[in-house]
Amino acid sequence: MQDFNVWLFDGFETLDAFGPVEMAGALDEEYLPKCYSFFGGIVKSAQHMRVDTLPHTAMDTAGILLIPGGLGTRPLLRDSAYISALSQIAKKAPYVLTVCTGSALLAATGLMDGKRATSNKLVFDWVSTLGGGVTWVRRARWVKDGKFYTSSGVSAGMDMTLGFLYDRHGKEAAEAVARYTEYIWNSDSGNDPFADHI
Amino acid sequence: MQDFNVWLFDGFETLDAFGPVEMAGALDEEYLPKCYSFFGGIVKSAQHMRVDTLPHTAMDTAGILLIPGGLGTRPLLRDSAYISALSQIAKKAPYVLTVCTGSALLAATGLMDGKRATSNKLVFDWVSTLGGGVTWVRRARWVKDGKFYTSSGVSAGMDMTLGFLYDRHGKEAAEAVARYTEYIWNSDSGNDPFADHI
Repeated sequence: MQDFNVWLFDGFETLDAFGPVEMAGALDEEYLPKCYSFFGGIVKSAQHMRVDTLPHTAMDTAGILLIPGGLGTRPLLRDSAYISALSQIAKKAPYVLTVCTGSALLAATGLMDGKRATSNKLVFDWVSTLGGGVTWVRRARWVKDGKFYTSSGVSAGMDMTLGFLYDRHGKEAAEAVARYTEYIWNSDSGNDPFADHI
Repeated sequence: MQDFNVWLFDGFETLDAFGPVEMAGALDEEYLPKCYSFFGGIVKSAQHMRVDTLPHTAMDTAGILLIPGGLGTRPLLRDSAYISALSQIAKKAPYVLTVCTGSALLAATGLMDGKRATSNKLVFDWVSTLGGGVTWVRRARWVKDGKFYTSSGVSAGMDMTLGFLYDRHGKEAAEAVARYTEYIWNSDSGNDPFADHI
């Protein structure tokens, strides 16, 4: 099994993290979800969930990296030691998945320069001022560019994770997870019903 | 704000709990999600998430009660002290929401006797042998009967919670949450694409 590393911080959006965890964790014996934060210990989501985490220094960087978004991303964008630690880990990860404003954190590392990405539609105009070298895609449920998968807001993370499973394990595996979780999968990464709400 | 009490146990299905938490928590200033377990402390989901909980004796029973499902429900069904504690709390709660096999736990309390309910479609035949007095509805994304909302598997909990918000706070409130979470809401409780997978 490969680690599925979830990068948490205070004020993360609950479903940004746990939607993808459900989808990856539901694929038989492939991924082992583990939660990390900068210092480890209890981290509190924007919806008051208290989640126990390991310190980021304990992470096996051969695992997949998932970065959720949420209001908690804002202060972190200005914390250079934090962004530097995230950068080291994201550089080593074989795949990096972001949900919502998690792509803002990833863009701050500079690793997305010259790459295509998307983000939450309600704050798209703000996000798209960040990471000068990123090509921000407005209409997309999720975007894949090399090893980077970035998704739109909150629930889009589940569609993206199923897309990731599809790319890596095939259609049958992704559809088996959607069936197990009784999830009505929007499997078309270009189908973004929320792009018009900007 | 009203407490939104999440009843957790080892082996709960991650999204069963956190999908509804996201939806209820995203409605401005209405619900305060709080996690409980029988003894309190760290509880581990089926997908290895470690969540900090309060003991059930500390719960404000005037809050909404959410019962997720998951493989962890199986041993609990045979634990009469556990079911008795859940029964006391579910009796007092103004609304009880269950996801997946959470309805099996609720049925074990006897409170659903004479009422309609649904559950996960993959294990529907098993669940429907439980709670002799319950009318199990096979084709339903979710079922409302009085103060009880029961949903199908995993992702159906999000559709149900939005349905609950619709019933209690109106269409505009439910749609605002779906938009904020970029969730493609299946708002028809009778539209159950997974009923045929049984």
